[in-house]
Amino acid sequence: MTTDKEFRPGSNGHSISFQVQPESTVQAADKFCDKVKKYGHSVCSVETLKNRLPILKWLPKYSLTDVQSDVIAGLTVGLTVIPQGLAYAKVAGLPPQYGLYSAFMGCFVYCFLGTSKDITLGPTAIMSLMTGTFAVSPVEGDATYAIILTLMSGCVQLLMGMLNLGIIVNFISYPVINAFTSAAAITIAFSQLKHIFGLKNISREFLHMVYDIFAHIGETRIWDMTLGLTCLFLLFFFKKLRTLQWKDENPDDVKLYKRIARKFLWLFGTGANAVIVISAAGVAAGLIGLNIKDKLSITGELKAGLPPFRVPDFTLQNGNITQSAGDIFTKIGAGLGIVPLLGLIETIAIAKVFARQNNYRINPTQELIAIGAANIISCFCSSYPITGSFSRTAVNSQSGVRTPLSGVVTGGLVLLALYVLTPLFYYIPNAALAAVIISAVLQMIDYKIILILWKANKLDLGLLLITFISSLVIGIEYGILVGVGLSILMVLYPLARPRIKYTTTQEDILVVQPDQGMRFPSAEYISETIIERATTGKNNKSVIFDFQHISTIDYSAVMSIKKLMADLHRFQLQVVLTNVNSTISVDLEKADIPGLMTFSNIDKASHQLNYTEPTDIAVIHL
Amino acid sequence: MTTDKEFRPGSNGHSISFQVQPESTVQAADKFCDKVKKYGHSVCSVETLKNRLPILKWLPKYSLTDVQSDVIAGLTVGLTVIPQGLAYAKVAGLPPQYGLYSAFMGCFVYCFLGTSKDITLGPTAIMSLMTGTFAVSPVEGDATYAIILTLMSGCVQLLMGMLNLGIIVNFISYPVINAFTSAAAITIAFSQLKHIFGLKNISREFLHMVYDIFAHIGETRIWDMTLGLTCLFLLFFFKKLRTLQWKDENPDDVKLYKRIARKFLWLFGTGANAVIVISAAGVAAGLIGLNIKDKLSITGELKAGLPPFRVPDFTLQNGNITQSAGDIFTKIGAGLGIVPLLGLIETIAIAKVFARQNNYRINPTQELIAIGAANIISCFCSSYPITGSFSRTAVNSQSGVRTPLSGVVTGGLVLLALYVLTPLFYYIPNAALAAVIISAVLQMIDYKIILILWKANKLDLGLLLITFISSLVIGIEYGILVGVGLSILMVLYPLARPRIKYTTTQEDILVVQPDQGMRFPSAEYISETIIERATTGKNNKSVIFDFQHISTIDYSAVMSIKKLMADLHRFQLQVVLTNVNSTISVDLEKADIPGLMTFSNIDKASHQLNYTEPTDIAVIHL
Repeated sequence: MTTDKEFRPGSNGHSISFQVQPESTVQAADKFCDKVKKYGHSVCSVETLKNRLPILKWLPKYSLTDVQSDVIAGLTVGLTVIPQGLAYAKVAGLPPQYGLYSAFMGCFVYCFLGTSKDITLGPTAIMSLMTGTFAVSPVEGDATYAIILTLMSGCVQLLMGMLNLGIIVNFISYPVINAFTSAAAITIAFSQLKHIFGLKNISREFLHMVYDIFAHIGETRIWDMTLGLTCLFLLFFFKKLRTLQWKDENPDDVKLYKRIARKFLWLFGTGANAVIVISAAGVAAGLIGLNIKDKLSITGELKAGLPPFRVPDFTLQNGNITQSAGDIFTKIGAGLGIVPLLGLIETIAIAKVFARQNNYRINPTQELIAIGAANIISCFCSSYPITGSFSRTAVNSQSGVRTPLSGVVTGGLVLLALYVLTPLFYYIPNAALAAVIISAVLQMIDYKIILILWKANKLDLGLLLITFISSLVIGIEYGILVGVGLSILMVLYPLARPRIKYTTTQEDILVVQPDQGMRFPSAEYISETIIERATTGKNNKSVIFDFQHISTIDYSAVMSIKKLMADLHRFQLQVVLTNVNSTISVDLEKADIPGLMTFSNIDKASHQLNYTEPTDIAVIHL
Repeated sequence: MTTDKEFRPGSNGHSISFQVQPESTVQAADKFCDKVKKYGHSVCSVETLKNRLPILKWLPKYSLTDVQSDVIAGLTVGLTVIPQGLAYAKVAGLPPQYGLYSAFMGCFVYCFLGTSKDITLGPTAIMSLMTGTFAVSPVEGDATYAIILTLMSGCVQLLMGMLNLGIIVNFISYPVINAFTSAAAITIAFSQLKHIFGLKNISREFLHMVYDIFAHIGETRIWDMTLGLTCLFLLFFFKKLRTLQWKDENPDDVKLYKRIARKFLWLFGTGANAVIVISAAGVAAGLIGLNIKDKLSITGELKAGLPPFRVPDFTLQNGNITQSAGDIFTKIGAGLGIVPLLGLIETIAIAKVFARQNNYRINPTQELIAIGAANIISCFCSSYPITGSFSRTAVNSQSGVRTPLSGVVTGGLVLLALYVLTPLFYYIPNAALAAVIISAVLQMIDYKIILILWKANKLDLGLLLITFISSLVIGIEYGILVGVGLSILMVLYPLARPRIKYTTTQEDILVVQPDQGMRFPSAEYISETIIERATTGKNNKSVIFDFQHISTIDYSAVMSIKKLMADLHRFQLQVVLTNVNSTISVDLEKADIPGLMTFSNIDKASHQLNYTEPTDIAVIHL
């Protein structure tokens, strides 16, 4: 091939000369060795150790004022996570204590590995729903499936972190996540309505569940409903206290007693869950003391004490049910991919929000490693999959947390509760826990986005609605797959059918400019469309193929260019390329296409095509 | 937002004015109705009918000379497909007659629906291997699975044709198809070696198969091997006859007897399979006549006559085995997607090659409909999945075929063979059929591509080798998935991590130019990288974000631009956009980002940023 700089009219176009010389094999090998050395060096450095164990960065600077803040924040988060954990475990289809089993080890591990001071790991609404969807054990109340899912999610996340595959998350678009979250919140809220109304035998599948609730509404237990609705109302009221804005001209003028009162209201709002659950348990205990039994559905007996620290079971044996690890893996199926990805998305999204709010930087890869390690180690304590919790991270941040050490305080409080309080959990009414969940998940529903997208981007709105509806109709686990699949198709389509701009010069030459890369999905399409354009219409036209917007090519593109040249040559037409960048030039040169010519711009190409007969320039042998 | 044309220095940047007005809802509805009308009109036109039933185009012009050519071509292809069908059925794990059951109906259907005169549908090596891989019935010699796979493949292909989804094929790159084809050929060739050597109890899985063949080589049956190797040698020799090139100065000078002799040699080469199989059957029959039995493995008894025309069974019942349609679907699994796609790729690829060679045009969508319908109707005659055969299409083309009517002749000959010849098939030696298969598939292996890709594109070479090796090691059905997955990742990666060009102007303003679109996979990455660049280094810099190479945006991109502006505003820095095209302008205007400014080029933007203090221009409320 020839570039225009060396082009001599009348030559046969075969002289090869090029600015960018491909590097020799020896040079390439040297470069590779250098890279390996550098990589080896960087892996062993102190900086890398600090990046992998962020605690080494902040612990040496730790001070006494930090302790005070971290302890207060840790205790506040602990008071939130205990009632939430007991409640979420029900969404996961497990006995309440598993919510607490999942609430401490993640905090401990994150303290060593996390890069955000605010994040607090533990059970969340979405992860609980996913566990209840993918890890359903055939034995009532058995957690074997959930624990295996925790281990596998951790391994997948850790692997993704080490291989730097966090990039996958970028392919799940915002409307999809938004629709999925709203659908999950609605599914969870409906699943808790049965506890509020005290209904039995309600299906787990969303549409059936809604039908069952309406069909059985006559069987509502009046005591459960009264308590449930009261709790719900009080929770909404108390939570408002936390977000109250006081109108003061000058913050310094506010009197001390006022400030104490406000701080108290805030604490009350933040600890609302705990207050409600304790009060409801008190009511239930009182009723039992008055011998009014069986009116309220209560938690009942649960296994007391700390969970055993042991290697999880990989097989399930119970009565006449025996399932191997393979059986369990097959049943969890797509959950082994979806659950770790969702965990990852939740943590990274939350970490980014608070990092921006509090002006520090997180390291997404390290976050991935931290959450992976947290899941792996947590599964030894019978935990179900955990991730970052938005509501508790907000509480942590507002409580003035300074370092991830607050997580140790939170985890310690949870352990204490497990050790001391389990006998008292007996009295907690199911309706109170349901109220805790409903008030938490309703905040996750974002209906404003519909109006925003209606104005801004209808395609994204369509994606959102399809994801949302399919999540509710065919199931939350398939809905997200539908959404991700569709959004990937939406980015793939233009790769296969790029927009191509055609212009005809005064000299009746066709100038073709595709708007993006020429790789295998589009290569054949581009060349075939060009052939069609060039050979239909009044006159056949020679072609200037402009590479301005094409930054890389692959072998399919090279083949297509060859084919394009051969096909047009049969019509006595020519093709020349313009604006070819240096990378592509090297690739084309290697492919050794006879008779191929490139020019630096369209004018030069056009001039060349005008004053040379096709047969003068090159004989194309393909 | 403001464009630079309306920009008045000192204004607050909020005045909205725009060239491209978004269309009103009424206008949009009118447009939609027009489209629907046009579509309705086009669906009912004669042109559409002719496009859907291409026989209506060529049959009215059919002449007597066409008949002669089509009959000769049809008979030649028939002579090829009968031995190939008997042989391929073994690769599919079915009794030999199923190869013939699959060889006629496709030709009949294609005659009505096909757009290529050369293509001939029927059993092929790849489809047979896929049937033998995905549709393995638990009952020896039972075809229920294969027939269901045919029906489902047909439905998937027809649906893809009607929904215009043939575009999916573009995402399977050439190196992947090439590696898959070579690996399939090697797998098939090895699977036939056992028949050449007369070995028993050889595993179906490639690595085990190779091991077993070497381990059992001592049990070779000498008569089978002698016959098999002889057939193989003769086949290679005869097939060379077909491709002989005669060196003559002037074709018109060649004497008649020479021309007849040459035509005879060509015919002999083309009919080599039939000649070899008939001769080998003669030898086997002679040996049995001489009472030399059990020396040669022969085909033995097979069901005589035509297959019944009936609705296929959806359940399998045999002895104590009962399987429902659901069981069978689950077992076929990914085959329900892979088999129709491969069938489609094979047919379209072949059709394109011959359309180019013989200078006509095919309609890919109609080809998809034709092959889908052929599979659906074929399954009523107990066919396994069929597609276009490269070798027989070549024979058809070289025999001078004029229209798809030749397929009717081919199909007729196959029916005749089934009706009359089945008793004679008894004597066909297995080794002879194995030789037919091996000589056919070895042509599919393309080793030259390795050297070409080594020179042209190492990334594609890596993809080819990984696909090839994984096809052989973990199985042909997973190998192609690995290849397709990797090649899609290769096109997706640049979407998430576009290359970004940074330049700093003399006035210390950062100019940022991403090399491709800003959509959800890359939006956040781009805005975060810009923030990092703008706020690190000696001085913080304001940013000119150049949209030259960005042709569309989505909601994620809008959000990222908002975030970028808010984050840089905290550092007292500004962001302005340049070279924004009209589509994006409309999207940005709808999103209503306060304080956003666009300029037609970098110079104007740079001038503006230089002479205005940040706070003068816009207060950003996000």
